[in-house]
Amino acid sequence: MSIVTFTTDFGSADGYVGAMKGVVLSRSRGAILVDICHDIPPHDVAAGAFALAQAAGHFPPGTIHVAVVDPGVGGPRADVIVVAKNHIFVGPDNGLLTLAAPNPDAVFAIEAGAFRRPVVSPTFHGRDVFAPAAGMLAASAPPEEAGRLLPGLAPLPALAPAAAATAAKVLHVDRYGNVITSLSLSALPRGHAELKLLLGEGEAQQAVQVPLKKTYSDVEPGTAVLYVGSAGLIELAVRNGSAARMFNVGRGTVVHIEAGAA
Amino acid sequence: MSIVTFTTDFGSADGYVGAMKGVVLSRSRGAILVDICHDIPPHDVAAGAFALAQAAGHFPPGTIHVAVVDPGVGGPRADVIVVAKNHIFVGPDNGLLTLAAPNPDAVFAIEAGAFRRPVVSPTFHGRDVFAPAAGMLAASAPPEEAGRLLPGLAPLPALAPAAAATAAKVLHVDRYGNVITSLSLSALPRGHAELKLLLGEGEAQQAVQVPLKKTYSDVEPGTAVLYVGSAGLIELAVRNGSAARMFNVGRGTVVHIEAGAA
Amino acid sequence: MSIVTFTTDFGSADGYVGAMKGVVLSRSRGAILVDICHDIPPHDVAAGAFALAQAAGHFPPGTIHVAVVDPGVGGPRADVIVVAKNHIFVGPDNGLLTLAAPNPDAVFAIEAGAFRRPVVSPTFHGRDVFAPAAGMLAASAPPEEAGRLLPGLAPLPALAPAAAATAAKVLHVDRYGNVITSLSLSALPRGHAELKLLLGEGEAQQAVQVPLKKTYSDVEPGTAVLYVGSAGLIELAVRNGSAARMFNVGRGTVVHIEAGAA
Repeated sequence: MSIVTFTTDFGSADGYVGAMKGVVLSRSRGAILVDICHDIPPHDVAAGAFALAQAAGHFPPGTIHVAVVDPGVGGPRADVIVVAKNHIFVGPDNGLLTLAAPNPDAVFAIEAGAFRRPVVSPTFHGRDVFAPAAGMLAASAPPEEAGRLLPGLAPLPALAPAAAATAAKVLHVDRYGNVITSLSLSALPRGHAELKLLLGEGEAQQAVQVPLKKTYSDVEPGTAVLYVGSAGLIELAVRNGSAARMFNVGRGTVVHIEAGAA
Repeated sequence: MSIVTFTTDFGSADGYVGAMKGVVLSRSRGAILVDICHDIPPHDVAAGAFALAQAAGHFPPGTIHVAVVDPGVGGPRADVIVVAKNHIFVGPDNGLLTLAAPNPDAVFAIEAGAFRRPVVSPTFHGRDVFAPAAGMLAASAPPEEAGRLLPGLAPLPALAPAAAATAAKVLHVDRYGNVITSLSLSALPRGHAELKLLLGEGEAQQAVQVPLKKTYSDVEPGTAVLYVGSAGLIELAVRNGSAARMFNVGRGTVVHIEAGAA
Repeated sequence: MSIVTFTTDFGSADGYVGAMKGVVLSRSRGAILVDICHDIPPHDVAAGAFALAQAAGHFPPGTIHVAVVDPGVGGPRADVIVVAKNHIFVGPDNGLLTLAAPNPDAVFAIEAGAFRRPVVSPTFHGRDVFAPAAGMLAASAPPEEAGRLLPGLAPLPALAPAAAATAAKVLHVDRYGNVITSLSLSALPRGHAELKLLLGEGEAQQAVQVPLKKTYSDVEPGTAVLYVGSAGLIELAVRNGSAARMFNVGRGTVVHIEAGAA
């Protein structure tokens, strides 16, 4: 049976997630529904893209991932089905799917009547376009029947510069206040047990000295630490605390890392 | 296999939801469990009723919906199974099920021993009455074996007046701060691109001029907009913002809509 | 098919829970995944232990329960599989599993390569150790193939004293502000409709007179009430309010209950 995952900013106090699940099951009664997460901050496409990219690749081949963080719903952005590395993604073409499927094999518009509900609310494509499309795919409809082949996916504005720039950026702050940067281990100066971290720019820039360790529990509670996180990227954390709060950083904060004392 | 959905105010920091799911699976091991939502504000029966009504009808025929927002648990309100339009609802008879099943085909009290756990905690009928009843129904027990036929469902006090009054009310505020009114499109003055909205009553009443559009993205960020929402009702939103906060309205606020300038 | 439950402090705004679910399904495609809860306060092992213990025993025999509240991840605490009363628990040996499995039949270290991902992130054993181990168990691998037999489980420091001391303690405060104590009904003075409750110690100790009832709805809204809660323990609640806030108590607060007027 097909697995269908859900990643949204719908929260867990309304019936929106439930409506989507019902529509999927109405088209594919045996689909296996799996929640990734629903508390993406409202309208925060970059946070949704990051969460989806963290999780999606771990699912079995053939999994259908529905993602909805869609502040432009009803506007010009396309509704899409993306085929990438044996996974299928369904959602708005606003950057949300771009991190999880950076090199898609194919992108299709969701246009065919069978892939949409008969009447589509301009404010809830999750229920009326993405859920029926996912239900069709779960019932083995081929993605190419959904609509036109599109040239590719829209970029993700918030994160695209960080990946390209020589100065790294904060990509994400997680629930614990761990600060996930765009740097990989190879970007760090070698052979240093401690590194100098420059956070922010101009007058507001802070310099802090932080040890490079394997994990949080290698330092004392309340102490900052750098390590290679589970996404393979350099993270800054405070053991039993919040690095984001201690250093007042958030997504987009510029980060430099240097050898030597702060 | 039977689908069993869950809608509660139990949150996601305690084991209450898990206990209910375990009880259902213990009576019907192959039941397909689906979370609608668990962050209904504590004791807010009307919010739970609204979320359930938003989601339930989208599920396939035969779905069993368990809902628990139950401030009067252990008191005189009945434990019920409601059959309505090929769906089955299980929960307290306190108005929670009334919006989703406004015209039930049958309402049964949950009295039979097989539909309850042997010892029922007076504070947790979710685990000890509604979950075992749902598990029995998922295992194909007929609802009429649960107990007496009851004459109908209790009304939902918070929302009943709004539906009937000539003055409309706010039915719900969602996670985005979108304000869902009890008005349908046919209640609006025709042929006006902008409408005058009167929010509240007496001295606190505000008058605002708002364009009527198809969706949020038809206006600039920060701007208020009226549209027909996904529930088929008139909603007031602020693009990329919260209409509830901007206009300081909540459930029950009286709403008038008129043609003409504010 | 095997049932696999999840109890974590990962929240619902990141991809961590989804990554774990994907890893389980990649090893056991037909596993039935069930969320217990994910909003355990970050790093609060005792709260996670309590939620898991509330829920786990209600699941059918053979259920696999994965729990991750793991502030010491990557440090010396062991990764374990616990067999107890026909249930299997998977998680860190930091006290998290101790309330749900107080008398385990067997505890195994998770050491074998097949039970871990090839590369284990020192900060995310949920994804790289506990999820693959659960996936193997769901695919019918015997727990004893995971690794060495360990002598037992670590105690849960926060709750262990409360269970033993003559003075009771607050074990947990739930979402509603209900205060769950370590006292059972047999510890109360008999034959009194009202009891005197001493909350806290020394100068901060408060004395309050509270009726003993069956449930909240036996008292007026805003009124405090004692009753035997769904865990079989004495709870203090305020009808339609928060007892924790009204009396300013939290986990660990010392509680005495006496007969007589306050």
